[in-house]
Amino acid sequence: MTIDKPREECAVFGVFNTQDAAAHCVLGLHALQHRGQEASGIVSTDGKDFFQRLAFGRVGDQFNKGSVIDHLVGTAAIGHNRYSTSGSKQNYANIQPLIAELETGGLALAHNGNLTNARELRTKLVRRGCLFRTSMDTEAVIHLIAVSEGETLHDKIVDALSRVEGAYSMVLLTEDALIGVRDPLGVRPLVLGQLEGSWILASETCAFDIIGAEFVRDIEPGEMVTITADGVQSSRPFGNSQPSRFCIFEYVYFSRPDSFIQGRHVYDTRKRMGEELAYAETHDIDVVVPVPDSGVPASLGYAQALGCPFELGIIRNHYVGRTFIEPTDEIRHLGVKLKHNANRTVLKGKKVALVDDSIVRGTTLRKVASMIRDAGAKEIHIRISCPQWIATCHYGVDTPKSSELIATTHTLEQMPEHFNVESVQYLGIDALYRAVGETGRSAPSPQYCDACFTGEYPVQPEETDDPIVQVHTLSA
Amino acid sequence: MTIDKPREECAVFGVFNTQDAAAHCVLGLHALQHRGQEASGIVSTDGKDFFQRLAFGRVGDQFNKGSVIDHLVGTAAIGHNRYSTSGSKQNYANIQPLIAELETGGLALAHNGNLTNARELRTKLVRRGCLFRTSMDTEAVIHLIAVSEGETLHDKIVDALSRVEGAYSMVLLTEDALIGVRDPLGVRPLVLGQLEGSWILASETCAFDIIGAEFVRDIEPGEMVTITADGVQSSRPFGNSQPSRFCIFEYVYFSRPDSFIQGRHVYDTRKRMGEELAYAETHDIDVVVPVPDSGVPASLGYAQALGCPFELGIIRNHYVGRTFIEPTDEIRHLGVKLKHNANRTVLKGKKVALVDDSIVRGTTLRKVASMIRDAGAKEIHIRISCPQWIATCHYGVDTPKSSELIATTHTLEQMPEHFNVESVQYLGIDALYRAVGETGRSAPSPQYCDACFTGEYPVQPEETDDPIVQVHTLSA
Amino acid sequence: MTIDKPREECAVFGVFNTQDAAAHCVLGLHALQHRGQEASGIVSTDGKDFFQRLAFGRVGDQFNKGSVIDHLVGTAAIGHNRYSTSGSKQNYANIQPLIAELETGGLALAHNGNLTNARELRTKLVRRGCLFRTSMDTEAVIHLIAVSEGETLHDKIVDALSRVEGAYSMVLLTEDALIGVRDPLGVRPLVLGQLEGSWILASETCAFDIIGAEFVRDIEPGEMVTITADGVQSSRPFGNSQPSRFCIFEYVYFSRPDSFIQGRHVYDTRKRMGEELAYAETHDIDVVVPVPDSGVPASLGYAQALGCPFELGIIRNHYVGRTFIEPTDEIRHLGVKLKHNANRTVLKGKKVALVDDSIVRGTTLRKVASMIRDAGAKEIHIRISCPQWIATCHYGVDTPKSSELIATTHTLEQMPEHFNVESVQYLGIDALYRAVGETGRSAPSPQYCDACFTGEYPVQPEETDDPIVQVHTLSA
Amino acid sequence: MTIDKPREECAVFGVFNTQDAAAHCVLGLHALQHRGQEASGIVSTDGKDFFQRLAFGRVGDQFNKGSVIDHLVGTAAIGHNRYSTSGSKQNYANIQPLIAELETGGLALAHNGNLTNARELRTKLVRRGCLFRTSMDTEAVIHLIAVSEGETLHDKIVDALSRVEGAYSMVLLTEDALIGVRDPLGVRPLVLGQLEGSWILASETCAFDIIGAEFVRDIEPGEMVTITADGVQSSRPFGNSQPSRFCIFEYVYFSRPDSFIQGRHVYDTRKRMGEELAYAETHDIDVVVPVPDSGVPASLGYAQALGCPFELGIIRNHYVGRTFIEPTDEIRHLGVKLKHNANRTVLKGKKVALVDDSIVRGTTLRKVASMIRDAGAKEIHIRISCPQWIATCHYGVDTPKSSELIATTHTLEQMPEHFNVESVQYLGIDALYRAVGETGRSAPSPQYCDACFTGEYPVQPEETDDPIVQVHTLSA
Repeated sequence: MTIDKPREECAVFGVFNTQDAAAHCVLGLHALQHRGQEASGIVSTDGKDFFQRLAFGRVGDQFNKGSVIDHLVGTAAIGHNRYSTSGSKQNYANIQPLIAELETGGLALAHNGNLTNARELRTKLVRRGCLFRTSMDTEAVIHLIAVSEGETLHDKIVDALSRVEGAYSMVLLTEDALIGVRDPLGVRPLVLGQLEGSWILASETCAFDIIGAEFVRDIEPGEMVTITADGVQSSRPFGNSQPSRFCIFEYVYFSRPDSFIQGRHVYDTRKRMGEELAYAETHDIDVVVPVPDSGVPASLGYAQALGCPFELGIIRNHYVGRTFIEPTDEIRHLGVKLKHNANRTVLKGKKVALVDDSIVRGTTLRKVASMIRDAGAKEIHIRISCPQWIATCHYGVDTPKSSELIATTHTLEQMPEHFNVESVQYLGIDALYRAVGETGRSAPSPQYCDACFTGEYPVQPEETDDPIVQVHTLSA
Repeated sequence: MTIDKPREECAVFGVFNTQDAAAHCVLGLHALQHRGQEASGIVSTDGKDFFQRLAFGRVGDQFNKGSVIDHLVGTAAIGHNRYSTSGSKQNYANIQPLIAELETGGLALAHNGNLTNARELRTKLVRRGCLFRTSMDTEAVIHLIAVSEGETLHDKIVDALSRVEGAYSMVLLTEDALIGVRDPLGVRPLVLGQLEGSWILASETCAFDIIGAEFVRDIEPGEMVTITADGVQSSRPFGNSQPSRFCIFEYVYFSRPDSFIQGRHVYDTRKRMGEELAYAETHDIDVVVPVPDSGVPASLGYAQALGCPFELGIIRNHYVGRTFIEPTDEIRHLGVKLKHNANRTVLKGKKVALVDDSIVRGTTLRKVASMIRDAGAKEIHIRISCPQWIATCHYGVDTPKSSELIATTHTLEQMPEHFNVESVQYLGIDALYRAVGETGRSAPSPQYCDACFTGEYPVQPEETDDPIVQVHTLSA
Repeated sequence: MTIDKPREECAVFGVFNTQDAAAHCVLGLHALQHRGQEASGIVSTDGKDFFQRLAFGRVGDQFNKGSVIDHLVGTAAIGHNRYSTSGSKQNYANIQPLIAELETGGLALAHNGNLTNARELRTKLVRRGCLFRTSMDTEAVIHLIAVSEGETLHDKIVDALSRVEGAYSMVLLTEDALIGVRDPLGVRPLVLGQLEGSWILASETCAFDIIGAEFVRDIEPGEMVTITADGVQSSRPFGNSQPSRFCIFEYVYFSRPDSFIQGRHVYDTRKRMGEELAYAETHDIDVVVPVPDSGVPASLGYAQALGCPFELGIIRNHYVGRTFIEPTDEIRHLGVKLKHNANRTVLKGKKVALVDDSIVRGTTLRKVASMIRDAGAKEIHIRISCPQWIATCHYGVDTPKSSELIATTHTLEQMPEHFNVESVQYLGIDALYRAVGETGRSAPSPQYCDACFTGEYPVQPEETDDPIVQVHTLSA
Repeated sequence: MTIDKPREECAVFGVFNTQDAAAHCVLGLHALQHRGQEASGIVSTDGKDFFQRLAFGRVGDQFNKGSVIDHLVGTAAIGHNRYSTSGSKQNYANIQPLIAELETGGLALAHNGNLTNARELRTKLVRRGCLFRTSMDTEAVIHLIAVSEGETLHDKIVDALSRVEGAYSMVLLTEDALIGVRDPLGVRPLVLGQLEGSWILASETCAFDIIGAEFVRDIEPGEMVTITADGVQSSRPFGNSQPSRFCIFEYVYFSRPDSFIQGRHVYDTRKRMGEELAYAETHDIDVVVPVPDSGVPASLGYAQALGCPFELGIIRNHYVGRTFIEPTDEIRHLGVKLKHNANRTVLKGKKVALVDDSIVRGTTLRKVASMIRDAGAKEIHIRISCPQWIATCHYGVDTPKSSELIATTHTLEQMPEHFNVESVQYLGIDALYRAVGETGRSAPSPQYCDACFTGEYPVQPEETDDPIVQVHTLSA
């Protein structure tokens, strides 16, 4: 079987000791929907049996009925959102949480991140007779637990995780415990919250707000917490030595602006990225226009620091959604116009700063710039609130190949011509570190994982082997 | 049959003389989706036969396939979007354009607005043996045309329209002509555009932008334009005497911010409404927070005029859509949290101006205010960029009964306590007129229809009779 | 608009004065499903309002939920099944019962049969301003009623029906009456039943059996019955002069074998058709094999009369249903094998009489014969329990054009070669009349409509004009 | 996890070396649809990759599109039909073929039968760390293969199967081989066919007829055939000693009448069962009426042997299908009438023999008898063409618990009163053996598995333990 989607961004959520376990799980996953929209799953337990619901589509569409919540019996539950990949890969087996029947009882597991030695582990496990049911890297962890000779389930989990490399923030559920664990580098976030007598684990704090829970603390890199009827027990099974390397791109784009990560407010860090862009500004700017909606916080910081008006120069059509999936040629050439329209009176004759949080391929931004030009802008200055994205992520963010990234195919000097604008500026790497509260990037051991901007990977990813068997599944 | 939805806001679109008639119609309706999301329809003609597609749901979901566009043969087409009503009323017969087989040939018709003597007309027409197939006021117009003794189709249409009262912007399609007509008061918008050799009629100019067409002019109140192979012919069949009464609420809320109406840019008028609010401000404000997304343009105008920072103090969850339609009790009490979350660091300890474009029932705003309070705001000042909404619209905007409007159940003085905020201010009626370019409201003949704010209706609506027959249809 | 399906076989059902009106209507239509499987509709009334449910698909799938029955409030209801046409013609407007708002109140109408002057009526009605909403001939009747100058509704209905020609068995529902009417020739069946205090009208008696009702009598040709709280009133508004012409093909194929028509049991008449075939038999026959399932009753009669064993020589696959609708080439060439398989041991080395009720195009029968040959039959003798079908039906049975009928393209002498069998015999027309209880066919005024076998139409159908307008609707 | 459906009747099909592998697999499964209607799956291989399609519903509905056949690339394929269980248990993981990634490459497996030591095997395998993905007994076989220390895949399969007990006819697919294997008792059927250069394995010969293949021979009990590019290789890995025990109920009910099993034609054996019933007849019979459709072949044999007329005394409604799944109370009490109606004229005043192949609970038969009584039958004599069913099947036929079987709750003497008929007779066990070609039942080692009639199981089933973990899945 092939690992068809080796890296994906996702969300995890877990709750323990509440009559509303399933409802809280549904709401938490809804609040974390931005981290994955393809599919979601929830597993609950009543201390004896397990209850499961997996579905393609959004949480609000697939888990909104009372009958779903009623099915998910019990006072503890975990859930998972998966990132959207192409529809043809739809396969129910690949929806998390995974659930296993172990000698010690049931175990459900949900994973955010990406294991960098998954292929090697899989090959070894297949050789010893383990049957994989999915194409996900995560499944290797379950098999490692199942075949571990550790005495207790805790020992087996630690044994299994000590064999994997890469990024993981995981929540696990047994008949009587909710477990959270974060890899020693702490690449992906995981936070602990509390609501009356119940404990919650989530990828981001915005999942606490929706159910009215209080943020307690971040789970630390390399930490494993075991939540039972006796409370929260913390351990550090992988030792303490490594400095952490949290993903700096969570601040730039991935996390929700109203979340707090490591004590920092994401919206504020994005505004500060905009401010840093403003400090480096060398051109005259009449009006600051965000690319909706991702560019708004940085635009506001930039506009405020520059003392320039912020205007909605691009109007978004709210009704695009999952639409025009099979466009005709007549429609396809319209491209960006299905989603956006230039707001002429704020652009005409103006020197426009067009601000976005990042550029991947640059295809859409090029059309947006052209639309703004057609609306009569005098000058267009593209401002990006992070450095140039030059390298593929191996720790859980789905990215195109390096060769498709605009920053690898075009130099900064070539970009103005490519985008047909007057100037293009990115945020410097040290300015990005200042925006998240550092004085700059430390070398050779930077405080964050910034591999996408620098190519310096905290763990070298495995070289890819061919899979033993390739299975192609036609979705229903 | 009952006229179950006597008043609804809608969009119309028509195009003549282009190979891309159907595709342009689809795109135009997509750009006008904000005016009606329940259902859409398109009728095209190849000069001989007619081709029809009616569907519930959004244009981008229901008309996006090549096979749909291929079905809609011909070089002329008209289309319609209908406002969303409760799902249980779904009835295919009520989707426009209506299409009729007349002695003179085929006729399709799409209508934005509301007829105020529809019930009376219907009763008369039923008495003479006309069979109504829908519960829509619009159908009376078709019957009036069919039974008119006018010689030409043009005569019949004028004869029919001279018998109806109320608001209408209509597009009609025959084998060889596209017709646009606006009621003498000009309550609803209708604009004329051009793209190479083709002519376009649309509710708003944003529908021109998406297909790259140019705005030519507004269709004037009481004007009828007939577009044939010979070009555009204008007539004024209802005389010229009445001063027009365009709906001022189109500027406040209904039209898209990037549209131009009567030569005015909607976004700019909304910003000016915010500025007028600022000129009247008597409190200290630390930060300006819009209710997303409707309050943003007024917030920007208000913040700029006041010199106060504009911040996204409320973060919207983009994944709500048509979700949680059957919420459980656990979920229902969460109310506003499914859609919005407070952005704490920009609110904590601040005097917050919370700006929205209008209040209808006020239910959501009350929850939003409470959420902002919980996030630590020191003071909350609600600012609304239009006057108090005190009267039901009879000309095409679906509104609750007067008795459900917050402005009829609470005095301005009672509102701070009701919303649990420090102050509530609305825009004055003269300030609103200034924002749209007047020096103030003229009495006794105001320049706009502002009945929703003043209760002064330009045409008295009929007193409602009981329908002859009531039919209840169970949707599929 | 085009009358896209001018002739179709259908079922009607009506019930008056029972708390179970909707449930009985659902069950009656289910029992009559063989007369039309494309779509069904039910309209009920509580004496004031009307309640409607129209749906594509089978009654058992679309009307089986309690919520449907609960929606159809009231103690009187009528329903209709429509014959299956090609899927692309799906149009909700064309599902019956039609429902109209008249000056006298509501009226619902369901029709089995075909009007032979529908096009002419439609043209006239359009000229006087009537708007047609469907492409069905039935709609002309409703318009004729609506514009009639008759004083009472009864007068209007009689006035309208006196202007139509062709075949109709109709049920009509008003707020306080259930009406049944049959054209003067009585081409289509309509029967009256009773269950405790309620009255039932149905196309066939099998609809009485399913609800436990008792058969009272046939509605007579040209009779109109009006059922109200005061009981059943019969009238003969069209006079009495014409002899009736019931469709003899109802006995041959269309009606359910367990129904009684005109006092005759359909299964018995079919067995007698087989017996008549046997009396004319000139070949040696070893085994009698029916084409499943339509050929079974005639086969039994034939086998018993001949003293030959009856065997299931063809095994039907029960799981074909609506399947293989988009077959690949690999599958299409298999043709008949998807549905049938030869049962070898009963065929091998035998002289087989292969019995069916009728042949239309003969395509399937040719493949069946070939399959039986491949299974080792020594001789194959095709026996058909009706005469050669040589003419299109204009009174409500959907048939191919005459030029596609095997009996018009091949002489009886050519058929053995065409089917690659030893002999082909049809039932003679007089033998058919004997099977239904006559001593033979009377000329020049036969006792039945047998136009499909003789080409002698009781009413000449109209010559077809072009429709005024042609509308092509893309189904949802 | 629970083994929620431990015993089910199913169909298997495999094809090797044809360009039409997928199409033939679809057709073969369609012909075998009577053995399982809940779900089907196909796995194909092009010699390198595997291609999979699993779906709930019927083959003709779910595999009929060209795109499905196009997806299933390759010249070899296997498929499986699963028996219909209650809808709430729908779980994609439980559709076969199962597919595994082994060290030796890919392996797909489809199974008809039931393992009697599945629970014990599962517990052992879970203890050594095997992760089960389904609740099916079949999965244990795949795990046993995966962890086997056999050198070749052939060795591993033999090793695995030597550890399982119970009934299995399996087809397996690897990159370069199609394997068929039957348990030493040969409880379930498996036949080998040929079509030009390709080989086919199927549960019944009717699957050969549909694709035009020729029957070669039965796979023998305990035989394993390996089909590769080099042809068919046969082995007997489990030795030869045991006499076979084919399921006699396949002849009575399960197999299609047009199939040949062990050289015997199923239709003929069923007619002979009817003849044996006739030989034992002691009552006067006027007319023989089958319960449609299962009772028809035995009825014919019975009627012919008795010299009595065979008539369709019960008319089946062909449109029931998957309908009335949520019946209202009004509909539910109608029971059998939704499916069947009495055909009065053949029943009235007659002494009726009502023939069926078997009785399980007897609920439906009781209603049928009552319906026949209401239609005027003078006497009713129930005749069943197999012995009394007294014991649950443990080898692959889904049956109710013994305590729900009519033959365990009622003595033969009590039955006439229970069914309200004049007499009830079953076929004797020796007569049944005579019908399938034996001179009678041999004791103590009968020639067939007849445990359902005798309670003598060829292999004692395991005592059921509780599962380790119970997972409840809510279907989509």
